Amino acid sequence: MDTNPCNIPTTPIAKAGKLVARLSADHQSVVNVNGAKIGEKSIAVIAGPCAVESKEQLLATADFVEKYGGCILRGGAYKPRTSPYSFQGLEEEGLQLLALARMKTNLPVVTEVMDTRQVELVSQYADMLQVGSRNMSNFSLLTEVGRSKKPVLLKRGMSASIEEFLMAAEYILKEGNDQVILCERGIRTFETAYRNTLDLNAVVMLKRLTHLPVIVDPSHGTGIRWMVPVMAKAAIVAGADGLIIEVHNDPSKALCDGEQSLSSKEFRLLMEELQIIAPVIGRSMETRVAISNIY
Amino acid sequence: MDTNPCNIPTTPIAKAGKLVARLSADHQSVVNVNGAKIGEKSIAVIAGPCAVESKEQLLATADFVEKYGGCILRGGAYKPRTSPYSFQGLEEEGLQLLALARMKTNLPVVTEVMDTRQVELVSQYADMLQVGSRNMSNFSLLTEVGRSKKPVLLKRGMSASIEEFLMAAEYILKEGNDQVILCERGIRTFETAYRNTLDLNAVVMLKRLTHLPVIVDPSHGTGIRWMVPVMAKAAIVAGADGLIIEVHNDPSKALCDGEQSLSSKEFRLLMEELQIIAPVIGRSMETRVAISNIY
Amino acid sequence: MDTNPCNIPTTPIAKAGKLVARLSADHQSVVNVNGAKIGEKSIAVIAGPCAVESKEQLLATADFVEKYGGCILRGGAYKPRTSPYSFQGLEEEGLQLLALARMKTNLPVVTEVMDTRQVELVSQYADMLQVGSRNMSNFSLLTEVGRSKKPVLLKRGMSASIEEFLMAAEYILKEGNDQVILCERGIRTFETAYRNTLDLNAVVMLKRLTHLPVIVDPSHGTGIRWMVPVMAKAAIVAGADGLIIEVHNDPSKALCDGEQSLSSKEFRLLMEELQIIAPVIGRSMETRVAISNIY
Amino acid sequence: MDTNPCNIPTTPIAKAGKLVARLSADHQSVVNVNGAKIGEKSIAVIAGPCAVESKEQLLATADFVEKYGGCILRGGAYKPRTSPYSFQGLEEEGLQLLALARMKTNLPVVTEVMDTRQVELVSQYADMLQVGSRNMSNFSLLTEVGRSKKPVLLKRGMSASIEEFLMAAEYILKEGNDQVILCERGIRTFETAYRNTLDLNAVVMLKRLTHLPVIVDPSHGTGIRWMVPVMAKAAIVAGADGLIIEVHNDPSKALCDGEQSLSSKEFRLLMEELQIIAPVIGRSMETRVAISNIY
Repeated sequence: MDTNPCNIPTTPIAKAGKLVARLSADHQSVVNVNGAKIGEKSIAVIAGPCAVESKEQLLATADFVEKYGGCILRGGAYKPRTSPYSFQGLEEEGLQLLALARMKTNLPVVTEVMDTRQVELVSQYADMLQVGSRNMSNFSLLTEVGRSKKPVLLKRGMSASIEEFLMAAEYILKEGNDQVILCERGIRTFETAYRNTLDLNAVVMLKRLTHLPVIVDPSHGTGIRWMVPVMAKAAIVAGADGLIIEVHNDPSKALCDGEQSLSSKEFRLLMEELQIIAPVIGRSMETRVAISNIY
Repeated sequence: MDTNPCNIPTTPIAKAGKLVARLSADHQSVVNVNGAKIGEKSIAVIAGPCAVESKEQLLATADFVEKYGGCILRGGAYKPRTSPYSFQGLEEEGLQLLALARMKTNLPVVTEVMDTRQVELVSQYADMLQVGSRNMSNFSLLTEVGRSKKPVLLKRGMSASIEEFLMAAEYILKEGNDQVILCERGIRTFETAYRNTLDLNAVVMLKRLTHLPVIVDPSHGTGIRWMVPVMAKAAIVAGADGLIIEVHNDPSKALCDGEQSLSSKEFRLLMEELQIIAPVIGRSMETRVAISNIY
Repeated sequence: MDTNPCNIPTTPIAKAGKLVARLSADHQSVVNVNGAKIGEKSIAVIAGPCAVESKEQLLATADFVEKYGGCILRGGAYKPRTSPYSFQGLEEEGLQLLALARMKTNLPVVTEVMDTRQVELVSQYADMLQVGSRNMSNFSLLTEVGRSKKPVLLKRGMSASIEEFLMAAEYILKEGNDQVILCERGIRTFETAYRNTLDLNAVVMLKRLTHLPVIVDPSHGTGIRWMVPVMAKAAIVAGADGLIIEVHNDPSKALCDGEQSLSSKEFRLLMEELQIIAPVIGRSMETRVAISNIY
Repeated sequence: MDTNPCNIPTTPIAKAGKLVARLSADHQSVVNVNGAKIGEKSIAVIAGPCAVESKEQLLATADFVEKYGGCILRGGAYKPRTSPYSFQGLEEEGLQLLALARMKTNLPVVTEVMDTRQVELVSQYADMLQVGSRNMSNFSLLTEVGRSKKPVLLKRGMSASIEEFLMAAEYILKEGNDQVILCERGIRTFETAYRNTLDLNAVVMLKRLTHLPVIVDPSHGTGIRWMVPVMAKAAIVAGADGLIIEVHNDPSKALCDGEQSLSSKEFRLLMEELQIIAPVIGRSMETRVAISNIY
């Protein structure tokens, strides 16, 4: 037996940059998205369609997001698609529809920005700017959203390490914008049974390392509708401050990501379950509809 | 816009072999490990040291495992170590100590078997045989434990797909042994912030595809002590039928895996938290000590 | 024995978009970078420092790149760095130095563009625009370089599949720019013994699927200086149309990537070895200095 | 700019155990497999079918392996298959056929051993024992082949790090058997365009770290027939001491791995090409047939 019988490497804790680093157990930022707060005791649920497709689709979807307790509406106007021949989004028309949906529902909206030149325009319509996983290391874009006054939802790159993810957020804070929410959305592994491998370990590690709020996207994280609710609940127990969920008024007709979108009914059920789980781990869910009134 | 605007591949659901496949929503096997049942409504917690080190260590550890509600004692007598110069386990002496601990605590014991030639000997002492992740594709060993009469705890290989994992179990059932428990224990990814990446998606997918009980090992899955309890709770919410947890009466002196072992106090706290969470998702925890009596 | 005894999946050949797809064995594009041709029988070697650091550094390095047979000079003026606190490049001053080096050596220059807003400026100085691996799925940038008249060097994302890589190139061609070179630069795997895992399989597969030239970056692909020459030679035998190599007049003082940069002497030796290997596989090396004169 | 502008981690060189570690540039072991030497200047080519299927198949295949310059015959008698319902090999009958083929061709034979209990029997027939990638961390088996007097061909596990691979070899040498050959055979990554990702970086790193001979299996490494020859050539240039190639007298009818097996004609062509490449990098190929006589 050798003198060091246990050949385990010293725990390789990732390091956080000085601006994003958590300094103490109760050092926790709250991001205020036009009234919706993320990072507090209350669990925040962002929901909406993958892509804004039409006025009817967006309003119908926004309606039930609001009704069942979502606090922010999501919807893509500019879509990063693997193929240039796929639907690329409604662009500014999509932004206008999001603004319309906000007016109808009072929900703040978040939408993706893919280009430094879009930041100004998107900021005119959106309450929060999303930087997608494909752009997590687009440092020009990180710098530009860092210079804006809008909250930023930063998604983890598909193969970004915890340390790289935190450094991407550091780029934004360095420009003076500390309203940043981190989002775990599934990593790329060898496994092909799910679209991505949602990594809840990341939630636990990120909450330890940074004061920024951390949310989870089980829709992209799994890519499979029936996996979404259970992974959403597990994410909350793992410590996530919120969720971002793809929902659609008619998932079978979605132009994008229909396979992973929840229907109105499925979303309502998930929200109800979250209301039951949240208090058990010391969190809460602010909802506009009492559970007893849902049915 | 092309006619198929949404370039998502059809969900690649893994397939299960005919013996392990779940045939209906309520098709669920229960594995009986000398009285401890896994796969029922009640959550089963297996706990114990990574390696059996000495009589004192094992009995002290077994004592609090039993006291706080563990239903099976784990402990390695034959240890698969990356280096041939690392501690390889106490071998038969370790098996004898496990039998002694069972006598003292009435807990059934599970221990790893690494060699087809060990199956008979280990079966004389253990109530369940563990096939470790490094041996998940050791088909001779799978066949041999399939021929034994003992329940088998089969751990997922570090880079085994869901389909390969299920096929490994099929090898055991094909020999006539249907007392098999599957265990997710972390996969190998690019991330180095944790020892492995515990994959809770696997739990959700496995529960859908097979009637075999599924448990989770957050100790190896993360490799970091403070991550274990939170991932354990998330695993239960993801649908796991139980947990296997490394605990030690003095983790700082453990010959193996001390960095990921819970102390007596940490284990008690986890068990208490699980008792609160289990009912929320329709499960239960049978414990020998009431929560109010713990403190 | 079952009727399909060999459970191998049907070979999952990636698909190429219609513009990048190779239609026949001799369907091969040649990209002309201000006189330097890539995709012909002759092997093209691009070389230069990771970052443009100073006039002295760049001219000294460019001098030996030209002297030993490099056909294009590389050098970063805008640097994508994980940390916002790392050296970010000399920006426009770096572009000016590249133009100066071109004047002194007659070598065309390639440099990275990270932002759609930089494309016009960088195009004024560079002969080829590089899209780095972090921006391979920055579809706005792909579209913008597709609209420019400059050849584009597109690097594979760290975890991009072959199909995604080809679709990224399709974005550029769709805008009317068919002067695209693909570059394999190492993928992200579990292995930590090298910085990345250079994937020569990708070269073989890409050459089969697309008519675009394919080159290899063994410097980023391995991250280790002494691995560069041997992997460079293996890449040529695997079918690469060229190489991009990090070299520096004084690697020990490099501000960036010194660990993987070749010295003048190491570069000369590699070029000499390539001249010997190229003819064996039916390729050639155009060099300005005869082997016999080198020593 | 920070004081350490270049945030590259120190090169993480894997470490080798004391018995396998290379101590100097010319410290190179030669493994003698019943007359066939691996680790010398001469490139060694092992070839044969995935599985021994019948007398006719094996002898026809062995015949052209010998004719075109293979130095050792491979063939599986015990097959590790993902599914228990797949063809599992002819077992001892397969071993007898291998012995017959050796008698007919004078080629030494290598075959896989999957179980500690098989080592004695397989050793009676085979000239070299193969430990497959699924058993690379089967430490009981490593110990047992270490106690045998036979050379061992050890394949890298699908997700084994360089360090783990070397430690597996250390297990064998520790038992007194230093006749070990390492084989890179493709790792598991996110890429699905090929069956595995053949990792030639591993060859370069292993040759630096250990004195043991290193060979490459491009058949399993790619899983695609037309990729095999080009990756075989690249492997030799990367420094491999030899190759192991799957060949079959009628690949379309193979019971196993037909998609990656070369025909007689394809094997001949590869051997011819290797004869041309080997001298260029200072190696040689001993062949029984002159190139000019092949056609």
